[in-house]
Parts: sequence; structure tokens; C-alpha cells
Amino acid sequence: MTRTPQQNAQRHGGAIVDIRSLPQPYLLFLGDVTDPSYAKTAFGLRDWAPERCVAEYRCDGGTVTVGLPTMTVAGARAAGAKAVVIGVANVGGTIPDSWIAPLLDALEAGLDIVSGMHVKLGEIPPLAAASARLGRRLIDVRVPPRSIPIGTGRKRSGKRLLTVGTDCALGKKYTALALTRAFERRGLDVHFRATGQTGILIAGGGIPMDAVISDFEAGAAEMLSPDAAPDHWDVIEGQGSLLHPGYAAVSLGLLHGSQPDVIVGCHAPGRIEMAGTAGYPVPRIEDLLELTLRLGARTNPAIRCAGISLNTAHLADAEAERVIEQEAARLGMPVADPIRGGPAFERLVDACLA
Amino acid sequence: MTRTPQQNAQRHGGAIVDIRSLPQPYLLFLGDVTDPSYAKTAFGLRDWAPERCVAEYRCDGGTVTVGLPTMTVAGARAAGAKAVVIGVANVGGTIPDSWIAPLLDALEAGLDIVSGMHVKLGEIPPLAAASARLGRRLIDVRVPPRSIPIGTGRKRSGKRLLTVGTDCALGKKYTALALTRAFERRGLDVHFRATGQTGILIAGGGIPMDAVISDFEAGAAEMLSPDAAPDHWDVIEGQGSLLHPGYAAVSLGLLHGSQPDVIVGCHAPGRIEMAGTAGYPVPRIEDLLELTLRLGARTNPAIRCAGISLNTAHLADAEAERVIEQEAARLGMPVADPIRGGPAFERLVDACLA
Repeated sequence: MTRTPQQNAQRHGGAIVDIRSLPQPYLLFLGDVTDPSYAKTAFGLRDWAPERCVAEYRCDGGTVTVGLPTMTVAGARAAGAKAVVIGVANVGGTIPDSWIAPLLDALEAGLDIVSGMHVKLGEIPPLAAASARLGRRLIDVRVPPRSIPIGTGRKRSGKRLLTVGTDCALGKKYTALALTRAFERRGLDVHFRATGQTGILIAGGGIPMDAVISDFEAGAAEMLSPDAAPDHWDVIEGQGSLLHPGYAAVSLGLLHGSQPDVIVGCHAPGRIEMAGTAGYPVPRIEDLLELTLRLGARTNPAIRCAGISLNTAHLADAEAERVIEQEAARLGMPVADPIRGGPAFERLVDACLA
Repeated sequence: MTRTPQQNAQRHGGAIVDIRSLPQPYLLFLGDVTDPSYAKTAFGLRDWAPERCVAEYRCDGGTVTVGLPTMTVAGARAAGAKAVVIGVANVGGTIPDSWIAPLLDALEAGLDIVSGMHVKLGEIPPLAAASARLGRRLIDVRVPPRSIPIGTGRKRSGKRLLTVGTDCALGKKYTALALTRAFERRGLDVHFRATGQTGILIAGGGIPMDAVISDFEAGAAEMLSPDAAPDHWDVIEGQGSLLHPGYAAVSLGLLHGSQPDVIVGCHAPGRIEMAGTAGYPVPRIEDLLELTLRLGARTNPAIRCAGISLNTAHLADAEAERVIEQEAARLGMPVADPIRGGPAFERLVDACLA
């Protein structure tokens, strides 16, 4: 018997994840990756939900650290961890065979497993068997909600901000989280709306937009930020890039369905090639913004760009400051690195709320 | 146990449908619809695969006909029909309760059921039970293939044409089929690449692009038109519209992954509002083309527009001719109604191959 993916999600999946029901705190699993850019989930949890992170561990050959203490599964269990979170992702969202043994060890040690991969934990026979035998939970957060409607483009009440980017994995989530906290500090009524597995784990809710059937992509985005009070802000985590040859469908459905009033462009100066592509250069931020405003105007003619978030994590302080000032002058709009904060970031926040 | 939709498709679905394995000829089921625009599949099969269509039937209250003889399920079985094809679609792709009884009658009469809806036949308990009891087949063609990769944007060999439209359901499939036949008449090596359920039933293969998980949308389109001989043409059926607030994600993923050398714009003069939207006007064809060329250039910088296919089915002959000539003069490119054919259509074919 065949099932449509959508139907399957509607039957088995679903519901926006409520992080309060998840076993925590976490041990962060870093697999065997050697490139920190694949450990987005682990870094995100460390940075935005450190109170829920006990330690980290990895396979033989893995070299990435998020700076937490390294523990064995038994040591982490003894230190209070209730679940291991798969803290790394790879292209396609699969779980390689080399991760199975350490994940089985975690189950044996009394930990549940939480995953945001495309592949589902229960589909992996040894994990399914061990969890059943041991009474442990396998929790997948990358499952869309049950009933997603087709998008209609109906204008909704409330205010929305969407972060957009020139590539994957360069700061759209961090920027949205930092802006959410800044809005909160200013006393505004604001929600962070998560669209990826890490954001969902941090926020305790959201929709994994890249796991939604394409026909329902914009409808899912409409569902994610429903009608709200006129002065309520939804700050929506962007996904992919409109100019990425693999992921633009996700980005456009999210843009149309989010109908943002404000966009903030995210860019990583110095990055040359788009992630996972056959030699596609990272576009210029101004080209991405112009295209986003044009496409976004289809569902919100009042869309505007408040400014730019630069990921300067790889730059020394003085160089970062120089690049930020240079880009602000060149583009004539607020530019900041939200992680560095400071007056530049406050000017970006001002522009979002202007 | 939850399953990711993608995983589910990978386990249960899949493989590009081979129409030679389907039970045929068909009885076309028209449900209870009263608007012919919802009977795309039935009209498509009648027009492009009439040798596989025995008759039509409908529920009480249904008023649409495709012009075939109306038969009971028993009469159609006696006349040689092997399966009933659900020939109507609705927003969201569901099967309403009112269709269950007539579909059960079809199973009782000895017919299998073929469906291209989002909802799967086997998910409907009375149909599942009756098919099991009677030994009849429930065949869903709207299931993506097993292993879809993430799109990379790698340039592929061979030539590709994609039809694009200012709305849904206005002639993208018919235009692609008519161009395919015209290319065949000129002795070219050409494949029609189906992207929706009706096209798949007509062609005997393809990928239901709107049922693909959004993260894999461009990758599915890359898979659909693989590397080919330098002079081989793939004529790819377009989906949705880049300017539709609900379906643009499908359209953009298909555009990026198809990396077309040539686009043909499809438009229905006189249509005011986009299908299923909250008052969105149908865009101007020139705006759609300009946007398509701009976005398509990301994966094929040599993309060009060969001309326009106008759906003039609702116009008298003289008025249709006038509109076609007027649009050709206004836009300075070949304009034709492929169903009407004639010299205008041959000029459009010339431009595709120029």
C-alpha cells in the first residue's frame, strides 16, 4: 500500500513540536564530522539554549567541538542528561552507518534520541529494535504538522519579519533569534517562528519547512505565522536562498507564505561558493535583496528591507568593524553582526521597527 | 513510529510509473464536479490518449462531460474497461465522501482504480477493504520516485524546453504535448517529460512534482530530464506559476532543476483571477516571462523565450485569430494556440528550434 508523503505526515506526524514534552537536558552528538559548518544544530543549542545542554560526544574521527565538556554516554547520563540530540546535519539529512553504534550506546545507557534529520529514527532497524527493547524514545522533530492547506495569499493581521540569505548556513536563524531578543528587550510582543530543526529545538515549536510537500510550502508558511494583534511581531527564520539552485523552492514558498513586512538580508563576507553546488558563486547581497523584494511584493506589496546582517565570525574585531562600516556606507542601510551587537545592531533594530 | 514523507516515498512509492503496467483501457470518473476546469485529467486523457478511454461516468449532481459515452461501471466493464481513472481534481487533492460509493461500485464490477490525487486510495478504509476482498488493484500515480537527490545545479547535456504559465490549469501540459508532437513530426529526438498526474497517465512516466518534498524539488527536476545526446530535446510540462501565491515553490524548483534552454509562456486571455487565491489578478504574460528568464538564468544563463501559447478555447475562431495576431504584434514574438495549430503554431515551433 502506498501512502502519499503528505498523507503520511498527516497520519503519523505532526503537531508542532512542544519542547516542554522533550526529554532534557541534552547530550549533543557530533558524529564524525570534521567541518564545523555541519554542526549547526549543536552550535545553535549551545548558543541559544545552553541551559539544556550537558555535554558533547562524537565518533572516532570526528574533530568538531562546540566547547562543551566531552563525556561518554554513561557519564552524560550520570550528569543528568535525558536524551542525545543529533547535533550535526549533512546534505540530504541521512544518518550514516558509522553513527549507529554510538547511538545504540546512548540508548543502552538510558538516553532517548532526538533527531531533526530527514531520515526518521524509527526507520533504522537497529535503532527501532533497541528502543523497543529498552523502552527508550526516538523523537523526530522534522515532521510537518498534520493538515497543511494550500496557500491562498490572503493578507493576515500583525507584523512579520523574515530573514533571507545569499546562501545556506550563514546566519538566518541567529539573526532572527537575535532580533527576537532585541524586540523583547524593547518590550514588544514578539514570537520567534522556527522553520528548521535547530530552530524548532531552540524555540519549542515551528514547522520544518524543508520537509513540507512542495505543493503545500506556501500554505505551511501561512500556517506558521497566523493572524495576530496589529502590533504583534512574528520574526521568521529564513531557509536556503532564492538564488540557490537546490533550495530556492523552499525559500520562495516561505517568502510568499510569510508575506513579510520587513526583510533582513543575511550574508557571509568572503564566502565564495554556495553550499553543495557545482560551482555556483555566492550572489551579491544587493542582488538577493532586490530579487526578494520583487518576489515578496506578490503577497505583501509593502515589503521593505530594513538592513543587513553580516556573519563576521571568521574575522578579527577590527576587520569585522571595518567590513560592517564599509558595507553600510556602500549600501546606504544599516549593517550589523547581531552576534557582535553594539550600536550598529541597535540601528538595524531601529530600522526594522521604523 | 513516525516516518518522514521522503522516507515513506522512498520505501513505498516510487519508481517512475510505467503506463504499460497499468490496467487499461479506462473508464473516466467525473465525480460530482460541475466546473469543467476541475476535470483536467479526464479531458487530458480524452485528448491525448483517446485509444485508452472507453467511456465516462459520474455521481449524482455531476454535470461535466468530456464527450465520451456515459456508461455504468458494469456496462464499461462489459465494453472492455479494466480500470476506472479518477478524472477530476480539486484543491488539495482529496477524495470526498460522495465519491466512495461509486468507486466501490467500480471495484464490485471488476474494475481497478487509478488515481492521481494527493490522498492515496489505500488510505481510505472502505476502498482498502473492498479492494482486498475483491482482489482489485488501487494504483496511485502521484508518488515521487524513491531516491531524489538534492539539486546541485550541475549543467546537463542535451536540450530542454519548459512551458511556464501565468496561472494553473491554462495549457502548460497541452502546449508541451503539442510541441512534443510537432518536434516528432520534424524528425527530432524528443521526450515529453510529465510533471503532474495527468501528464504521467498520458506519457506513461514522469515525476509528480507537486508531491515532492520541497527540499528535493529542484533535485527531482534534475532527475526528470537527465543528461542526453546533444541534439535530444526534453519538453517538460510546467507546473503552477512563479507568481501564484500558493504554488510558486513548485514552479521555481522545477525551473531551476529543469535548466531550460527555451521557455514557452502559457496564458489564458480573459482570465481575471488566479485559481484558488484571495483575489490575486492573473499577471501579464510579459511580466511572467521576464521573471522566468531572470530566475531561470541562475541555472542556465542561455535561457531564452521562444514565444507564447494562448489558450483560446473559449473564443470563436475569428476572435481567437485576432487575439493571437494582436499579441504577436504587441510582444514581437511568435504567439499561437497549439490546439488550433496552423502557420502561427509552426512559427512558434520554428522559434523553439532556432
